This record gives sequence, C-alpha cells and structure tokens, in this order.
Amino acid sequence: MVEYSRFFADRVKPMKGSAIREMFKRMADPEIISLAGGNPAAELFPADELSKIAGKILMTSPTLALQYGTTDGYSKMKDCAKSRAEKVDSFKDGDEILIMTGANQGIDLTAKAILNKGDKVIVEDPSFIGSLNAFRSYECELVGVEVENDGMDMDKLEEALKNNSGVKFIYTIPTFQNPTGTTMSLEKRKRMLELASKYDILILEDNPYGDLRFSGEDVPTIKSLDTEGRVIYAGSFSKILSPGMRLGYIVGPAQLCEKIEMLKQVNDVHTPMITQLMCVEFMKKYNIDKYIEKNRDLYGKKCKVMLDTMEETFPKGKVEWTVPEGGIFLWCTCPGIEDITPIVDACLEKKVAIVPGSNFAVDITAPSNKFRLNYSAVEQAKIEEGVRRLGAVLSELL
Amino acid sequence: MVEYSRFFADRVKPMKGSAIREMFKRMADPEIISLAGGNPAAELFPADELSKIAGKILMTSPTLALQYGTTDGYSKMKDCAKSRAEKVDSFKDGDEILIMTGANQGIDLTAKAILNKGDKVIVEDPSFIGSLNAFRSYECELVGVEVENDGMDMDKLEEALKNNSGVKFIYTIPTFQNPTGTTMSLEKRKRMLELASKYDILILEDNPYGDLRFSGEDVPTIKSLDTEGRVIYAGSFSKILSPGMRLGYIVGPAQLCEKIEMLKQVNDVHTPMITQLMCVEFMKKYNIDKYIEKNRDLYGKKCKVMLDTMEETFPKGKVEWTVPEGGIFLWCTCPGIEDITPIVDACLEKKVAIVPGSNFAVDITAPSNKFRLNYSAVEQAKIEEGVRRLGAVLSELL
Repeated sequence: MVEYSRFFADRVKPMKGSAIREMFKRMADPEIISLAGGNPAAELFPADELSKIAGKILMTSPTLALQYGTTDGYSKMKDCAKSRAEKVDSFKDGDEILIMTGANQGIDLTAKAILNKGDKVIVEDPSFIGSLNAFRSYECELVGVEVENDGMDMDKLEEALKNNSGVKFIYTIPTFQNPTGTTMSLEKRKRMLELASKYDILILEDNPYGDLRFSGEDVPTIKSLDTEGRVIYAGSFSKILSPGMRLGYIVGPAQLCEKIEMLKQVNDVHTPMITQLMCVEFMKKYNIDKYIEKNRDLYGKKCKVMLDTMEETFPKGKVEWTVPEGGIFLWCTCPGIEDITPIVDACLEKKVAIVPGSNFAVDITAPSNKFRLNYSAVEQAKIEEGVRRLGAVLSELL
Repeated sequence: MVEYSRFFADRVKPMKGSAIREMFKRMADPEIISLAGGNPAAELFPADELSKIAGKILMTSPTLALQYGTTDGYSKMKDCAKSRAEKVDSFKDGDEILIMTGANQGIDLTAKAILNKGDKVIVEDPSFIGSLNAFRSYECELVGVEVENDGMDMDKLEEALKNNSGVKFIYTIPTFQNPTGTTMSLEKRKRMLELASKYDILILEDNPYGDLRFSGEDVPTIKSLDTEGRVIYAGSFSKILSPGMRLGYIVGPAQLCEKIEMLKQVNDVHTPMITQLMCVEFMKKYNIDKYIEKNRDLYGKKCKVMLDTMEETFPKGKVEWTVPEGGIFLWCTCPGIEDITPIVDACLEKKVAIVPGSNFAVDITAPSNKFRLNYSAVEQAKIEEGVRRLGAVLSELL
C-alpha cells in the first residue's frame, strides 16, 4: 500500500485536528454539560416558518432551487446580504458582495486570494481558530497582538507593524470577539484604520456576532469608517438565522471580489440554491430583526445567569473574566497558574466541558492559564449547574 | 483608494474569469439556443418529492437541520454516498468518505492537500475547466495528455511520466469525459494503474457522469481495480439528483481524508445540513436508481436527436465527432481549420451557442479547431433546431 504522507503538500503537514473537536469526542457522555461549544441557541430556530418556506419554494420554483446557480450568489440573496451590510453602513460605492457557504469560506478564499507563502497576517491573540487555521493553510506567518478589554492593543499593533515587513492584512473580530467576548472601542477602530493606512495594509473585519448586542451601545463597524477601501467585511447568517444552512457573505472592492469569485468557482462552484432561497423568503415574509431581538434577549439572560453563578461560585480573587455586551462567549484568566490543562481535565471528570485558551493562541504549544465559556447553546438551568461544577473544580485546584 | 492588485497572491494573478461564463453573459438573448451548458435536465428534477421531504425534515428534525453539523458529513449522508461508491466497488478497506459541497470542492481540497507550488499534475487534454483551474490555483504545472476515442493515450502518458519529475497525480474523468464524451477502455484503466504504480504516483478519478450510461456496457471504475490504495475517487449527486443542492463526496485512504477534512473545516466548516438530510430522505423513500434510469433514457434520446441532426446537417467530411455512450457531452473537431473562434461567433449571430475547445485545453491561449456540444439541458425540439443552425454555419464557413 502507498505511504501517503510523502504526497502531502507542505501546507498540510503541520495541520492538526482541532483539539476542540477531540474534546467533543470525549464529550459523548450525555451527562456532560458543555460550556465549550460555539453553537447558537437551537430553541429559537424558526423551524416552522422555514419548513413552510422550503416546501413552497420547491413546489413553485423547482428549477431555480435545484439547478446550477451563479458563483457570486442568487441575486435576491445578494440583495438580502447587502441589506444586512447596509444596516451597519458597511457596503460602499465600488464594493461587490459575494454569497459564501458560511462566512468561514469567505475568510478562507480571501486569504487564498491575498497570501503568498511567507506573507504575514496580524491577528488578535487569541482569535477564532477556524480563521487562524485557514490563514495557516496558506503557509503565512501569524503575528499575534494582545487583546485588552476594549479590543486589540493599538500600541502593540503599531509595534508589530514597525517590526514586521510583509504584512498583508490585519484580521479582526472587533465586536464580541471570539474567544474573548470583548468589543473594540470606536477610538481603537479609528486608530486601526490610521495604522492600516500608514503601513499600507488591508483589514479583514469578521463580524458574525455584531447583531447580538444585549447591553451597551452599538459601535460602528471598521468598514463603515473606512474611506480608502482598505476593509474587507465578512458577514454571516449563522448566528442570526441558522448555522446549518451555511450562509455568509463577503463585501469588498470589486477588484478583489473578482478574484475571490474565481476561487469560489473552483471550490464549491456556488452556494446551494435551496438555502439561499429559504433565507430570501424568510427575510421577505418575516422581520428578521424581530427574530434577532429574541436571540439577543435570550443571550442577555443566559449571559447574566453565567456571570451571576461565576460571581457566586468562583474562588474570590483567583479568576478574572470579561463581561461581554453581546455575542456568545466570555473569557476567563487564572493569573495564579501557568497551565489550565489540569483544570480542564478535572472539569471533564466533574462532567463539565470548557475550552483551554491555547486553542485560540497564535502559538498553540505554549501553556495557557485561560479558558473560554459559551452561554448561547446551553439551557439556563444547565448553565447554572455547569458553572457550579466548574466553580467547585476551580475552588479546589486554584 | 487602495490599488488592490499589489495585494494579490501570485496564485490568482494569472487567473481569468471563465470564457464560458463570459459567453453566458452574451447569451442573455432568450432566442439563443444554448448547446454550450453543462446542466442536467431540469424537467426530471424530483421537485414534488423533495418539496414534501424538505418541509417534513424541518418540522420533525429542526435542530439537526438548522444547527452546526460535522465537517466529515452527516453520518446517514455518508452512508448514502458510501452506497453509491460501493455500487461501483469503489469503497475499500481503509478508505474514508467525506461529504463535499459538490464534488468540485473535493477535487479542490484534494489538490490543496497534495500540491506544492511547482508540482506537476497529469491531466487529459482537454479536460474539465473547473478542475484544471482548481489545480492552477495551487501554482502547479499541468501536463496534458491527448484523449483518444477510448480515453487517454497510454503511450503518451508513459512518455509524460518519463519526461516529467515531480508528478504527484493523474487527474482523469474516465467515463463519459468532460468535454469529449469518451470512455476509457478497461485495458487502458489497467495500464494507467500499472503506470501509476511504476512511477509511484496517485490517481484522482472524477466520476460525475458514470451513472448516466445509455448504451454499451459498464466499465469498472479505476478505483475498483486499484489494489495499492493509489486512487482517490470523487463522486457527485449533481447529475443524478440536483446540482443546485451541491452534494458530492470523496473516497480515499483515511490518512489523506484526515487532511482533506481539516481543509474543509477551514473552508466551509461543513456541507449544509438541509441538503444532506433531503438527499438521505429521498434515497430512503424512493429508488434513486429508478430516477437515474429516467435520466439515462432521456439523455439517450436527446443524444440521438443531436447525432441524427448532425449527420443530416453538418457538411460531409469536414467535421469529426465522438459518439458518447452516456453522460451529457460530445466533442467535435474540424480538421480543415486552425481556429474555431469565427465559427463560434457566427453561431452566436445565428442564435446558437457552442463552447470553443480552447477553454478545456491545458494551453488556453493556443487556437483550437474543436468545440463541445451539450444535449442534456436542452429540449429535444431545440436540440434539433440548434444543431440545424450550427450545421448551416459550418456548411457556410468550412
């Protein structure tokens, strides 16, 4: 038999399966309460509405729904995505919009259109593992910049830009960041744009959680503040309609979108038609913002349950955490220890799952004293119980 | 404003939009009969069945249909795909199967897992443009080998393997090839495997049309003849259920599939759940082979109408063509001329569209005296009328 490893491209040789996925395998035990996921709340999915819509579309527009579509996306779906982007002033003159099979595809193909081997990307450290691994798959170098409670540290960003040539873009999730739950201040957003202009680089703004604010005031997207066409904007329907439908979009200058479209054409040709048509029809018949509001309210309540229980059960002075104003994650640090791994393992023994911080780091081999918690996917009673179990472990081991 | 071109990766700089797509834009005129497409026949789509299925799935399994799924595919969908592969003895011990958002994604990600810049891929010349462009996007070198009426020229393949170091795999569509409509003989399939073994390379077998035989005898897939684990097999539901659903799969050794799965995870995370569930339910409730039989019959009839009208209207002795035993394409050569472009343009004037051969070539800049015809997507009366128009142009210009 063939020894396959000799055929592997250099880009995949260092790739390892996500440790989060490995943990999910260990979590098959139904008694485990998972605060480790990143799923939206399934209890709010508009399944009845989508059921009627899907049945009707296939009756009334069978050819449209089942035949090949265009790579850039179904025109009415493009309008729907554009309306979401325009709602946050993030579609500009000269921009194009491309429908993606989930925003992650947009991030992957944007990276593919831009990154040569050895190019550098500046990222928040920690950041979303799916994007980091997409960038890594083009053999670029990731340069991490620390995240503070009000977003990426701008002085350290400037330092990174000074010390690194070959940076093509900054990747940021400025609003309700994954994994930290933090939101970048307006001032920092402006500063990031100034720095991008000064060092002549691009910004890839990933905004999957922006609609999910449950407290505080909206902050303009970086894209909306951009006057030079430096920002590529990735939007998603995963957290406001359904992740299983895999619908996202990219907004960017036409010149770049043309290249991304060609890469999508040789990737999945086009996003499935039925999911696009379902989204269009849902947005036509129902007020999606009303639906999003329900999600916000629920996530606000769930977050509060989590924070209240943490306050009550975590050992005093031994754990620090972020207080999100929206989104689905919060981020904990245990300043007194070096490595969270024994705690994560002890948690699994006590039937509660959390994700160790190293997964989200630029250097995934360095020990981390941090962990991520998710509240969107879990029922409120289970959040409370899960955090209690976690609090007991922390009290014992810290 | 930013000049974006300086940010482009080398891999996308030479990429041009498909000339076929450009032609489709010129074809907006509803009077044009298109023999240029590659769509399956929409009149047979099982829309009523899928309509009921889609509505029911969203009522009975809303969370499964709308929540995140796993990257490798929904387990029952994997079973369905496996049953299709097993039907042609193309799933072996040690193999894994991955559900793809269309087979093209499987081909793209297989190439991404294998190809370093400068590696070589041997391809049929002409071949499917979507795969060729996927390979090109990894900056490899394509080595073309001529296609005869019974498939790739094996002596030329051996010559190519002798003369080229750094070949990682052969890409082939052995059955009802796109664009030629030819099928590789059993003898040649065996010889290809011997050569792959002798030169220690892999074979990527793309089989989207294999189920669509309307005359002659089935030939075993290359994968089914493989005893060394050299063949990666790409299957598709696009031509046997619906292309707009974007469902395909890859069968290959677990070692390689593990890498492809990681690349899919950072690409679209997973294939949409609703389309997977629809396919599973369709295959559970209905006999998909009965449905495929209807397609075969229809395509056989359409192909005959096309061939009969060609026989009748094409200028005698000036055009040669392949006679497919299945699939959706046939391939014409005009030995007396160098460049088909003026004929393609004259056809558009006469309201019939055909694709010039250069689109499918390894060297797309070289003039071609060939063109591709499609019969699956067109009504029989229109095939006849379209071929008559084409015949008139050929009679005038050849």
